[in-house]
Amino acid sequence: MLAQTYELLSAGGIGGVSIDEVARRSGVSKTTIYRHWPSRAALLLEACSTIGSPPPVPDTGTFGGDLAAVADGLAEGLRSARWATVLPSIVDAAERDPDLAGLHAELHAGLMAPFVVISDRARARGELAAGRGSADVAAAVAGPLFYRRWFSRESLDAAFVSHVVEDALRTVARRGVEPRT
Amino acid sequence: MLAQTYELLSAGGIGGVSIDEVARRSGVSKTTIYRHWPSRAALLLEACSTIGSPPPVPDTGTFGGDLAAVADGLAEGLRSARWATVLPSIVDAAERDPDLAGLHAELHAGLMAPFVVISDRARARGELAAGRGSADVAAAVAGPLFYRRWFSRESLDAAFVSHVVEDALRTVARRGVEPRT
Repeated sequence: MLAQTYELLSAGGIGGVSIDEVARRSGVSKTTIYRHWPSRAALLLEACSTIGSPPPVPDTGTFGGDLAAVADGLAEGLRSARWATVLPSIVDAAERDPDLAGLHAELHAGLMAPFVVISDRARARGELAAGRGSADVAAAVAGPLFYRRWFSRESLDAAFVSHVVEDALRTVARRGVEPRT
Repeated sequence: MLAQTYELLSAGGIGGVSIDEVARRSGVSKTTIYRHWPSRAALLLEACSTIGSPPPVPDTGTFGGDLAAVADGLAEGLRSARWATVLPSIVDAAERDPDLAGLHAELHAGLMAPFVVISDRARARGELAAGRGSADVAAAVAGPLFYRRWFSRESLDAAFVSHVVEDALRTVARRGVEPRT
């Protein structure tokens, strides 16, 4: 049922997902579906649970190394994972539907969790610039990557990703913190 | 008809816009609509034409001043203009529908045009860092602003916008180019 839901979501965006259609495709009654998932948003949330589960964050010992690893992982997902095709539909739905705004917030928090982990480590080592936190780190890296994937639709090549990491370090890291050392 | 189309788009996203529904609401026959707009994408493009028409770019005489002005204008649009609610729907549709990917590309080019204008001026004055162009300037500024509006859904306050402009200048401008001077 979750696989069917995700299938519908990938193929037609969130507008393509209805409990009726999931029931029809899976051969399970709507009553049974509603017993497990009280709402369409709840079913969507579980079907999308892989979106919020990026691979574990490597612990390279430096903020520069960690940021490069997280950025590379995010870029790889944006280039080839199915969630990269699905997320814009949830972003759009979040503009109009409070339940789906809640779903979006959970998925977003999961996707950004690695930035929180590495920013906490960096702060403990004194590597963050004064007044900068994980929200700034995420905006500085995910911002340009998301922009490139969904808005300008240019290729997310390795050179662009390195540039983004170097630029982010120049602004959110304490002076003297180097890329990938 | 264009107003009706934009109304449907704002209320329900791109899935809510059909030629049938536009015909029903406007009382104009589908044949007549198709005579003016050969496809749904063509109708949507004209209805969205205001999205790609930001206000004229102030010419402040410096890259720092121009970038601050463009960023402020974009942030204001993201905070309060109707297109900020409409664009995610077009981004989503562009993932699956080549016609709507074309519509998205036109709207995006219009929205980003001010970055091209000010980057060209900056290059002529020798204010851009080596190897950096208008695509880098746009990604460095629009990236974090779009991220904040549609992904993290945090407030796009003036302090965040100034930070983004200062950070972008530190990376895309030649060393020594100052904010708002």
